Amino acid sequence: MTTDTSIDNASMAALLARVRDQRPLVHNITNYVAMTVSANALLALGASPAMVHAPEEVEDFAAISSSLLINIGTLSAGWVEAMKLAARRALSLGKPWVLDPVGVGATSFRNAVAAELLALKPSIIRGNASEIMSLAGVAGATGKGVDSTASSEVAIAAAVALAERTGAVVAVTGALDYATDGWTLVAIESGDALLTRSTALGCALSATVAAFAAVAPPLQAASAALAVYGAAGKQAARSCRGPGHLAAELCDALYAMDAALLARDARVDSRALR
Amino acid sequence: MTTDTSIDNASMAALLARVRDQRPLVHNITNYVAMTVSANALLALGASPAMVHAPEEVEDFAAISSSLLINIGTLSAGWVEAMKLAARRALSLGKPWVLDPVGVGATSFRNAVAAELLALKPSIIRGNASEIMSLAGVAGATGKGVDSTASSEVAIAAAVALAERTGAVVAVTGALDYATDGWTLVAIESGDALLTRSTALGCALSATVAAFAAVAPPLQAASAALAVYGAAGKQAARSCRGPGHLAAELCDALYAMDAALLARDARVDSRALR
Amino acid sequence: MTTDTSIDNASMAALLARVRDQRPLVHNITNYVAMTVSANALLALGASPAMVHAPEEVEDFAAISSSLLINIGTLSAGWVEAMKLAARRALSLGKPWVLDPVGVGATSFRNAVAAELLALKPSIIRGNASEIMSLAGVAGATGKGVDSTASSEVAIAAAVALAERTGAVVAVTGALDYATDGWTLVAIESGDALLTRSTALGCALSATVAAFAAVAPPLQAASAALAVYGAAGKQAARSCRGPGHLAAELCDALYAMDAALLARDARVDSRALR
Repeated sequence: MTTDTSIDNASMAALLARVRDQRPLVHNITNYVAMTVSANALLALGASPAMVHAPEEVEDFAAISSSLLINIGTLSAGWVEAMKLAARRALSLGKPWVLDPVGVGATSFRNAVAAELLALKPSIIRGNASEIMSLAGVAGATGKGVDSTASSEVAIAAAVALAERTGAVVAVTGALDYATDGWTLVAIESGDALLTRSTALGCALSATVAAFAAVAPPLQAASAALAVYGAAGKQAARSCRGPGHLAAELCDALYAMDAALLARDARVDSRALR
Repeated sequence: MTTDTSIDNASMAALLARVRDQRPLVHNITNYVAMTVSANALLALGASPAMVHAPEEVEDFAAISSSLLINIGTLSAGWVEAMKLAARRALSLGKPWVLDPVGVGATSFRNAVAAELLALKPSIIRGNASEIMSLAGVAGATGKGVDSTASSEVAIAAAVALAERTGAVVAVTGALDYATDGWTLVAIESGDALLTRSTALGCALSATVAAFAAVAPPLQAASAALAVYGAAGKQAARSCRGPGHLAAELCDALYAMDAALLARDARVDSRALR
Repeated sequence: MTTDTSIDNASMAALLARVRDQRPLVHNITNYVAMTVSANALLALGASPAMVHAPEEVEDFAAISSSLLINIGTLSAGWVEAMKLAARRALSLGKPWVLDPVGVGATSFRNAVAAELLALKPSIIRGNASEIMSLAGVAGATGKGVDSTASSEVAIAAAVALAERTGAVVAVTGALDYATDGWTLVAIESGDALLTRSTALGCALSATVAAFAAVAPPLQAASAALAVYGAAGKQAARSCRGPGHLAAELCDALYAMDAALLARDARVDSRALR
């Protein structure tokens, strides 16, 4: 693997400092289960979260925000309208927006909504292997509800294809995490299997991606978010005997994260794809 | 009390192992307050939760799920439509579904919704004493909002009558927990009074009931869920000096639960009613 | 500063005892992010919370409740209708209701909703400096999404003006907290800066204000809630190394609060304004 010096632990720690310095306002249209933990992760990190979803105000709010996250976990028709209004406004203003296609592949309604949102050109897409394969149109990718049935490695080709087709950076997470813009593949080793036993931690990761997207280009932002969040997750798991306190410990780890802790608990490699 | 050997700690521990082995996909249409803790309890237990409520997709989702939970805590008209669609589909597919009639008796809207859902033949109903008495049509049962004003013993007769009338297994919880199919009454001693000081723990119990309903007949499922969850609650309360960390400790206890811990912290008796 | 003997630590401890004794049913129409922590804070305090928002039942529920909280954090049109129905009913029944104007100033939709709710005469308004200045019509008060960009001292004049104009008690919170009815200004020193790094703690404070409003006149209720909650927050921050466990520790501190702890961790002064 050749090392892309623009995406390494030092540059990621610099982006973390930039988040803390700028405190970007991150507009979240996310699912009910993930709202509290996402807001807490963003606050612990140093960003300023807001959850706003009324069609009457999402365009105004997207305009005053630094970035936007759209997560389709708990859909309903009124929210889909708001998601599209907000994404369209972010796109027209050149603001970065992140799509988390939770559970895509599970129902045709969910697939249709994801396709409509994809057409609004997210800067970054973050999902598990089943979701990314489903979005990329790989057959037989259906997950188990909102959980993946495949490991992240299996979805690398789908992630690359999706990035090439959409122009988005695609992040696929699992035991190992990957981010790609179709030209470069960044692999991040961090996290812990225990994290899959606490709800919405993937959703809060996507919110974290949106915070970094406010201060850096998409591939750097996605990679730094995966590394910082994954290192925090690894630290959280280390201090837990079960999943109950993971979300709280993760927030404490995000709050305490620094360059040394990041270097210790996240291993990052990047290589050119073509 | 005669002991029904089919419902004892050993058989319950076997059902817990079955949940962990099968990791049933549990479809939750539940209230906003309870979503996160319910998902976390199910994940800690070893099940796979999903929260899906759009009328456009609940039928599809009910079809791919192993069981369904409907909790009426934070109602609105659009959600009621989704609840009925999902319950009807579960019923037609022969999938178990659990009704948690939160706050029934408090308003006429809530009473009407509960009656509509009852007509869709839940496999199991789980409520507090006030709720079960209200559903059974016992006069003067009104609770205090979503909290019961009566102890669970007072509601045993109502639970038996409701089971006989509806064909559902009825679980009524409080300081002591009871489950009945109208023929057998199972009594479970576990839990702790501190649990009433942390929100939505009864709702998360109902989600746990749904997980067990995916792997066992209704009376066995309800009894095992009450015992496993109650034992975990007792363990959680033991490690807390206040209610703040109860939900997290409960998840850790569900994650660590085994036959020995279950036998230590849940006392189960069953007797024939007729 | 002259000391108003009717609002001091001893009288506040007496109101806390009254909340625990009466266990008021507090009707919450609040935002999704804040629901769980608000319910948990109310339960830890000793009140009985319920979250009910369907237009079909909010009037019935307001009628059986002791007080009402309306928080506009995550608005949508259907909820605004419910908020107005509930507030109107509370007003007509002479029941106290508390307005938390989250994020007012951020969008014109939010401003319009806040104005409509103000017209329904809340007993108490609780916000951060940006929100109170925005409601009072002070120019240039826009916050950063739902976070304030100004310190609470800057908003004292706006709080007094808003109290005089509306007849409500106005509480403005920040590093220092203030409550005023336009005649008296109560200043409370408690809390900790770490509390700003955990989501919805201001919202849960507003719910706590509603609990006290069920047992005392508005200025006494607001002051006691600020002091009790602020002292609990200070104790919580003391036992945390980051924001992750703050909400849980805050609930434990509310649960354990007594006159001695309150006197130790909240400093209260009141002075006549005219």
